[in-house]
Amino acid sequence: MAKKNKVEAITPMNEDFARWYTDVILKTEMVDYAPVKGFMVIRPYGYALWENIQSIFDKKFKETNHENMYFPLLIPESFLNKEKEHVEGFAPEVAWVTKGGENELSEKLCIRPTSETIICSMYAKWLKSYRQLPFLYNQWANVVRWEKTTRPFLRTSEFLWQEGHTVHETFDEAQEETMQMIEIYREVCEDYLAMPVIVGQKSENEKFAGAYATYTIEALMHDGQALQSGTSHNLSDHFAKAFGIKFLNKEEKEQYAYSTSWGVSTRLIGGIIMTHGDDNGLVLPPKIAPTQVVIIPIAQHKDGVLKKANEIKDKLKENVRIILDDNESYSTGWKFNQWEMKGVPIRLEIGPKDIENNQCVLARRDTGEKISISLDEVEAKVNELLDEIQQNIYNKALKHREEKTSVARDMNEFISNQEKSMGFVKAMWCGCEECEKKIKEMTGASLRCIPFEQEKISDTCVCCGEKADKMAYFARAY
Amino acid sequence: MAKKNKVEAITPMNEDFARWYTDVILKTEMVDYAPVKGFMVIRPYGYALWENIQSIFDKKFKETNHENMYFPLLIPESFLNKEKEHVEGFAPEVAWVTKGGENELSEKLCIRPTSETIICSMYAKWLKSYRQLPFLYNQWANVVRWEKTTRPFLRTSEFLWQEGHTVHETFDEAQEETMQMIEIYREVCEDYLAMPVIVGQKSENEKFAGAYATYTIEALMHDGQALQSGTSHNLSDHFAKAFGIKFLNKEEKEQYAYSTSWGVSTRLIGGIIMTHGDDNGLVLPPKIAPTQVVIIPIAQHKDGVLKKANEIKDKLKENVRIILDDNESYSTGWKFNQWEMKGVPIRLEIGPKDIENNQCVLARRDTGEKISISLDEVEAKVNELLDEIQQNIYNKALKHREEKTSVARDMNEFISNQEKSMGFVKAMWCGCEECEKKIKEMTGASLRCIPFEQEKISDTCVCCGEKADKMAYFARAY
Repeated sequence: MAKKNKVEAITPMNEDFARWYTDVILKTEMVDYAPVKGFMVIRPYGYALWENIQSIFDKKFKETNHENMYFPLLIPESFLNKEKEHVEGFAPEVAWVTKGGENELSEKLCIRPTSETIICSMYAKWLKSYRQLPFLYNQWANVVRWEKTTRPFLRTSEFLWQEGHTVHETFDEAQEETMQMIEIYREVCEDYLAMPVIVGQKSENEKFAGAYATYTIEALMHDGQALQSGTSHNLSDHFAKAFGIKFLNKEEKEQYAYSTSWGVSTRLIGGIIMTHGDDNGLVLPPKIAPTQVVIIPIAQHKDGVLKKANEIKDKLKENVRIILDDNESYSTGWKFNQWEMKGVPIRLEIGPKDIENNQCVLARRDTGEKISISLDEVEAKVNELLDEIQQNIYNKALKHREEKTSVARDMNEFISNQEKSMGFVKAMWCGCEECEKKIKEMTGASLRCIPFEQEKISDTCVCCGEKADKMAYFARAY
Repeated sequence: MAKKNKVEAITPMNEDFARWYTDVILKTEMVDYAPVKGFMVIRPYGYALWENIQSIFDKKFKETNHENMYFPLLIPESFLNKEKEHVEGFAPEVAWVTKGGENELSEKLCIRPTSETIICSMYAKWLKSYRQLPFLYNQWANVVRWEKTTRPFLRTSEFLWQEGHTVHETFDEAQEETMQMIEIYREVCEDYLAMPVIVGQKSENEKFAGAYATYTIEALMHDGQALQSGTSHNLSDHFAKAFGIKFLNKEEKEQYAYSTSWGVSTRLIGGIIMTHGDDNGLVLPPKIAPTQVVIIPIAQHKDGVLKKANEIKDKLKENVRIILDDNESYSTGWKFNQWEMKGVPIRLEIGPKDIENNQCVLARRDTGEKISISLDEVEAKVNELLDEIQQNIYNKALKHREEKTSVARDMNEFISNQEKSMGFVKAMWCGCEECEKKIKEMTGASLRCIPFEQEKISDTCVCCGEKADKMAYFARAY
């Protein structure tokens, strides 16, 4: 018999992963379904996580000299049509505004699915001389993509994101920027969200509509499916040509500029949940958890307990995001389960006996382990433990990914690997779209990326058997 | 002859205030016109100011126990129709989405002009018991209102704002919240944006569509027109009844809840510009200026100048938002004018002679005054001066408002006051809508608010001459 869940309401992962996910996000009050199908309401607990993620990225962007700005929500249809590949990629999934106030609009407007077109139209107006370059700008915004199948955070008709849009003098500088940003994405995902990622290039088939090249970070979820977690695009001069972004270069000649774009979104929240969560609910990385420590007083009606609990809170609150749950309406056991479900990294228990012994108990969310510590060293121990939990859940996720990553030399091996366990399959690929599509048809796995860190699995393509010198990661994906 | 502008391109205020405003916002690169009429692009310099304003408000909201969340952009038409006054107020100015992807929608969706309706529909779902109350939530978001006449920041078809939406057990608690928030708005406007405001209640005619009572802060711009700068609404149980926000109260009886909403927007940026700006451009309050100090090296090619300038920058950058403009392409004079136009509170000049004397020069943006200070006391002096400038521009704005505020006992006096100078007119009002409308027709001035701080001007209504015991502020307004 399976171990009984502490929180009855959550479906065990192994029984039904999709239902587990839905239970967790709804019961922890991270999100709710909106009245309009495919849209979500991000509730305070989910939004607080997003604010913490945002502030880390925002700091990194500013450290690399990017500035924020804000472009309009609505884009004229004619703008979308200017870059051929781009419109083909996005037109089928945009929401159209056709009426403003009482009047039909003469040209319909789309709600931005991404902002390259409107931003490039302004860049074309602003840019005159190489002296102004580079343009290093970003915006935090909402976008709408009319999706057929949606799931909160992972794929929704509206989501929140940041989109960086930069302009450069040369192709090489645009490429450097593209690589810098995918590296920042990797760093934040691994060092703050504790989500190990594979960094690599998308195939022609999977790249951003209108890009020269797309780079991606790919994470592996608990169920063995991949999650594209951030992308960075070298747009070369494609959008510059479509929108006329030109400047006088150092030789006083007019030339087209080179641009990039890059983005991460509220999808990352889904990634965190499906990377670290367990049958008792969320497990949040300490560096971004809205609450890092919850103090739960034991027998709080007894003399001195709440006083001591408050003292500890006051001592820690300067450097730790801490809550004291002194609600009298709920039992201690209920509180334990509730905060465990919410994924708070450390529960600090303090009761009359602890106080007598000048100690308290720290319970780790990641391992369930409990330790008693002296109240004299509570600050140092809590901070140590937060670091340890951050590192441990990263290691655990990495181990999980490694266990779920296999190697295939031919399609039989590919399929038998998948039958044993879902996950990443590393295989050689000849580079042709036909093989990529055939693999998808046969296995459901798409080409996630050609990783920067290459290995030689064999000499021949896993699909067609022709000579191949590129190794790729394949997986079913969200 | 009028004093010649230092920055030739800006139209003098007295010549044409509207053109002055447009020149300032465009030339300082705060904003640009978007391709869609009525929309704006907020450029990095404008957005950085908004970020500073946001972070002050966000901190105050969190200190008063509000949490952020995020609700969908699109609202079903049927929701808008639920509160009768609300739909009458907003329906004429919303943008409608009628098509998603390739398909016509069965019910058209409006882009939020404000989010009471969609938020209340979710609150009705979430709220069960008094134990959950109060709901103290806020969102930072974009909204769309299809305006006919627009001006960047002041009135645009899309703007950025925060909207707080709270729910309470009793009318009194809702009223307390409404008053708390208008007080926070007053405090931030006066203490951070250096914009003195009149705090008071809107008339029935001017209140928010669907509210029980609306409170407002009203600022006076340099041209003598008022700017409504923030509003806080006690919605009583109006929206609760329309959306079914009910709960079991302490007596275990089902009752309707009481709600509030309150908001400030990017309009505040327009207010800052028109309160403090002068013929040379922006004058930014030190507390929110993106750059508080610009160092301009004099004869920067000379030995040691840039080294010393960098030393000063490094010494100050911990606590001051500081830039060193060492661009070689522009003359010192051009830089002076440019940064003056951008409203940077302090210009720090340092040249070979200054270095010899172990000193530098601080030039104030607000007064133009220059002082020499010893390099040993640069930190202390800069911080002192920033405080002084903050206080001085507040005092200046307050003095300006006082000079432009007059008293009227009858309509002749009202009109003659206005002929002398635009500004606030304080007058007694009987409370009837007819007089309010007649005053507007005769003078162009609307009833801005019934201020909390009442004075007795006379015993009778300025318009009809009947008995009146309320004093109101009237003004033409943006």
